[in-house]
This record gives sequence, C-alpha cells and structure tokens, in this order.
Amino acid sequence: MEKYTFKPIGYVKNPAISVPRNWSVSNLEGELVIDPRYKYGLKDIKAGDKIFVIFCFHKSAPFEPKMLIQKPPHLNEMKGVFSTFSPHRPNPIGLSILEVTGVFENIIKVRRLDMYDNTPILDIKPYLEYKPMGDQK
Amino acid sequence: MEKYTFKPIGYVKNPAISVPRNWSVSNLEGELVIDPRYKYGLKDIKAGDKIFVIFCFHKSAPFEPKMLIQKPPHLNEMKGVFSTFSPHRPNPIGLSILEVTGVFENIIKVRRLDMYDNTPILDIKPYLEYKPMGDQK
Repeated sequence: MEKYTFKPIGYVKNPAISVPRNWSVSNLEGELVIDPRYKYGLKDIKAGDKIFVIFCFHKSAPFEPKMLIQKPPHLNEMKGVFSTFSPHRPNPIGLSILEVTGVFENIIKVRRLDMYDNTPILDIKPYLEYKPMGDQK
Repeated sequence: MEKYTFKPIGYVKNPAISVPRNWSVSNLEGELVIDPRYKYGLKDIKAGDKIFVIFCFHKSAPFEPKMLIQKPPHLNEMKGVFSTFSPHRPNPIGLSILEVTGVFENIIKVRRLDMYDNTPILDIKPYLEYKPMGDQK
C-alpha cells in the first residue's frame, strides 16, 4: 500500500497550556504562522473569514486496533473512531473550522483554536457549509 | 522541517470518467472502500449521515510557486490557493463533505462525490457545521 508524505506549511502559535477538546467549544485565540514562501497564497484570507485547517495530531501515540472504538470525553457512549474527532486515529490528521481575526504578512490570527502550540499545519481551505444540491452558490 | 507520512485507510470506487469540480455541485454516487481492519471504526456511520472525507489528490503534479495564485474554473478572478479547493496546492490534500447512503461491512456508499476512482482516503470524520460559540450542541 502506498504512503503519502507531507511537509507542514506552517505551525500553530498558541501560548495556552491546555486547549478545548474541539474548535466548536473554543474561544481561544492564537496564530497560524505560515512558511513565508506561501504568503501570496494567503492573499484572499481576511478578518471575518472562516477557514478549514487540516493539521497533524503530532503528539498522538501510534494507532492501535483498540482505538477503533473510543469514548469521547463529552459523551457517555462508545463511538467508532470515524464518528469522532479523537486525536487517536489511523492517520493522526485533524480538521478544525477557525475564525480569522486578521492576516499580517504570513501570519493568520485566529479564534476558536483547539490545537496545541507547534501543531504542524498541512493545509488551509475556505470554509464551505453543507447545503442540499441546488442551494449551493 | 519535519515530514509526516500517512497510509490510506481506503480508496474511492467511482466508475465515472469525469467528476464535478467540487462535492457542493455533485450528485455523483460511488463507494468508499475502507481497509477491512478498520471496519469497526465505521460502526456509527449510517445512511443519511454527512461526513468529512480527507483524501489525497493523487494525480496532481508537484507544487510550483506559480500555483500560489490560481483562477478557479467557475470564477473570473485569481485567488490565493488557500482560498480555493484546487487540487494543485502545497500539500495535495482534499476535503469533501459527502452524504452517506448506506454502509455495508467495510464499504460506505456515498453521494456528492468529487473524487476520481482510486483516490486514496486518509481520514473520515463526522460533519460538524460552523456555529457561533454557545449555539453548538
């Protein structure tokens, strides 16, 4: 089976020692410090935007089969890993929807952070909400 | 700078030769064929669910700096790559929101596909819409 290798486009800067379990319950502020050579790719991101941020759970231990079923911290039931946002998953990839509060050169200031300091960022995309076919602009 | 390596958890099965440019404008049906050893991780995914699917743009040519600014096919303006869903990006990672129409053993049947046949799948997460703080359940 093939492997796919990625280099971070940047890193999270976040002075907080603990972070909320998910962006959806976070108001934490911090920065996405993007490699300056990708700066022009940020030109259309502005305060008020929401963005998808794809990142690595760089602190997660290697995946083990027992992690296929997990109890999310805020629920009293066991869930299949692909129905959770757990950092313990076959590929330790995370996805957050963050609010942009400003962009300065190669730095995106954000709110609703749920990533630790130094988290490697793999990609940023514009947030697009699910809508039934025909309703999408 | 570190590198992060991932192995696909499965592959897209999609007989269509051409695919819509984005899931948001697609009604295409197909399957996500997941490695059987991850089958139990799918136990809570059911027909009607919406899922985030993180995948590789496995056909994309290597990234070049000129791709930092691109013209999306449906727009008449140049956009910074991180404000597009282009397959040509520093890390060729894709994100789609798909509709589940059924789950059979290790196969997830989906609608709204925008990935080619044999696209490597890296992760699946439950769809969670952006809501202002306090409105999230």
